[in-house]
Amino acid sequence: MKEQNLEDTVREVIRKMAASATMNLDLAKHLMEAVEEQAKKVGVKAVIAVSDAAGRPIAVHCMDGAYIGSFDVALNKTYTAVAFQMPTAELARLAAPGGSLYGIQNTNEGKIVIFGGGEPLYVGETLVGAIGVSGGSAKQDTDLGIYGVERFRELVNKNGTITG
Amino acid sequence: MKEQNLEDTVREVIRKMAASATMNLDLAKHLMEAVEEQAKKVGVKAVIAVSDAAGRPIAVHCMDGAYIGSFDVALNKTYTAVAFQMPTAELARLAAPGGSLYGIQNTNEGKIVIFGGGEPLYVGETLVGAIGVSGGSAKQDTDLGIYGVERFRELVNKNGTITG
Amino acid sequence: MKEQNLEDTVREVIRKMAASATMNLDLAKHLMEAVEEQAKKVGVKAVIAVSDAAGRPIAVHCMDGAYIGSFDVALNKTYTAVAFQMPTAELARLAAPGGSLYGIQNTNEGKIVIFGGGEPLYVGETLVGAIGVSGGSAKQDTDLGIYGVERFRELVNKNGTITG
Amino acid sequence: MKEQNLEDTVREVIRKMAASATMNLDLAKHLMEAVEEQAKKVGVKAVIAVSDAAGRPIAVHCMDGAYIGSFDVALNKTYTAVAFQMPTAELARLAAPGGSLYGIQNTNEGKIVIFGGGEPLYVGETLVGAIGVSGGSAKQDTDLGIYGVERFRELVNKNGTITG
Repeated sequence: MKEQNLEDTVREVIRKMAASATMNLDLAKHLMEAVEEQAKKVGVKAVIAVSDAAGRPIAVHCMDGAYIGSFDVALNKTYTAVAFQMPTAELARLAAPGGSLYGIQNTNEGKIVIFGGGEPLYVGETLVGAIGVSGGSAKQDTDLGIYGVERFRELVNKNGTITG
Repeated sequence: MKEQNLEDTVREVIRKMAASATMNLDLAKHLMEAVEEQAKKVGVKAVIAVSDAAGRPIAVHCMDGAYIGSFDVALNKTYTAVAFQMPTAELARLAAPGGSLYGIQNTNEGKIVIFGGGEPLYVGETLVGAIGVSGGSAKQDTDLGIYGVERFRELVNKNGTITG
Repeated sequence: MKEQNLEDTVREVIRKMAASATMNLDLAKHLMEAVEEQAKKVGVKAVIAVSDAAGRPIAVHCMDGAYIGSFDVALNKTYTAVAFQMPTAELARLAAPGGSLYGIQNTNEGKIVIFGGGEPLYVGETLVGAIGVSGGSAKQDTDLGIYGVERFRELVNKNGTITG
Repeated sequence: MKEQNLEDTVREVIRKMAASATMNLDLAKHLMEAVEEQAKKVGVKAVIAVSDAAGRPIAVHCMDGAYIGSFDVALNKTYTAVAFQMPTAELARLAAPGGSLYGIQNTNEGKIVIFGGGEPLYVGETLVGAIGVSGGSAKQDTDLGIYGVERFRELVNKNGTITG
């Protein structure tokens, strides 16, 4: 293998890694679109938020008729899922009275949400952001969040940036 | 029926609908007056607040001798009742340890109240705002809130804007 | 003078003093009613607030169509007028660049308002509270605030609690 | 004209009025899409937010590479534009030292923005929400906000809900 070829290959791999490992608005829009459709099917008027790997919001959509209070909750579910790198439903168990993280909901200036609907998003094993869904029951929000994770995996594969 | 008559009728219907589906100061005053009288009867010095369908305050009255801390609580009870479209007493059950929304009281920048006294107000099936009562025991506040809901229904009917 | 008479007189004086020197909800309602009528006459959709001598809110009314942002401003105008015992229009002059209190608007957790519409309310020489008006131009708010001060004086006299 | 026809007409008019006088997610998405395209053309990485007539957020999009600080600013520009029913560029003039509303930026818990980029959105003469743009210079944000107002007018007309 010649030196020039090697360099090209390295560049290409790095380009793909960089592309695959960053949340962007376009990807967020497609993801939210998919979850909105699913929310309509199951009759939930949801707020759907997507954040990047730093927990910074990328996009938020409030479906018509969604709870006013859900804007804050959906956003903070993305923050929570990124902040502790786990689904908020899992943190719920640890944060319950008697749990090992009981009280964690009082940290981080009120931005920790301890019921389901927030899910970290990975490309391969790299955390790239999170989705937060709020508007239905905790069960419905959790299901929609997991649905989002699955669709995100498809979206990333379809864009050819990773096969995982 | 002539076209002019039709237009007049349409305008009148629209006017009535618009009137019926929006909280206004006059309605809020009458509602608060009624709840204040009831509070006096049961010996509670209450703060009574009314918000619109967006959770924005329309009016607040602090009865003589009411707790200073109740101003914030009454207002936030209206916010909570609108934000999640349920009585705060109902949210109390969901937000208790073990409940599906345990921890929700930490969201929305400290504006979520999870004990009774906040009640959404409907005209027909349209959410038009909320009443929040604070100053007595949780039981007393809840009772006064429910009393407010009943009186609101009467007020709306009396004004002829809806029969529900 | 017999002892019983003396006691009666003392009681009466104390009753009047107490009545005259305390803001109460009933007085606040009458005051706000008067200012609301005047606001309608001059075409301003105002938020009108009344606080007690401690700067604690007694009542707030948002006239239909008033600015959303005026709720906070009207309330804080009452706070400011009580906090520094002067009309907010007067504080505006002192707080302007070059003024002796330039920068005061950054104190008190964002509750200082430095344009007109907040007026302290006195019974005789005793500060008993403040009125805050927001919704028109600074000039209109100031005029309505001053109108409130005048009507408050009448209300207090009419109730026979003081002649000043 | 038969009674049934009358009722149908009334329903249709009401449906159109209701549709035209309320911000919704679909409309917000189309509006943001248009402003995003324009932002790309002029080389601005913007955060674009849309709120309803109560200043409640409907949707937020952060273009790739936008300032982290712009999320808050864009959202608060929509709040400000609704809260005082004027473009934030206009409020900037009133809030400057010597202006009649100097100091208003300290009210409303830090949510008032006094530079350009926030524009109220009207359907006919009805305030239905606001757009907020943040990420470029004040001039660029203002221009993009105004561009949004123009495109919103087109979108509303195209949807046939009003001709204004």
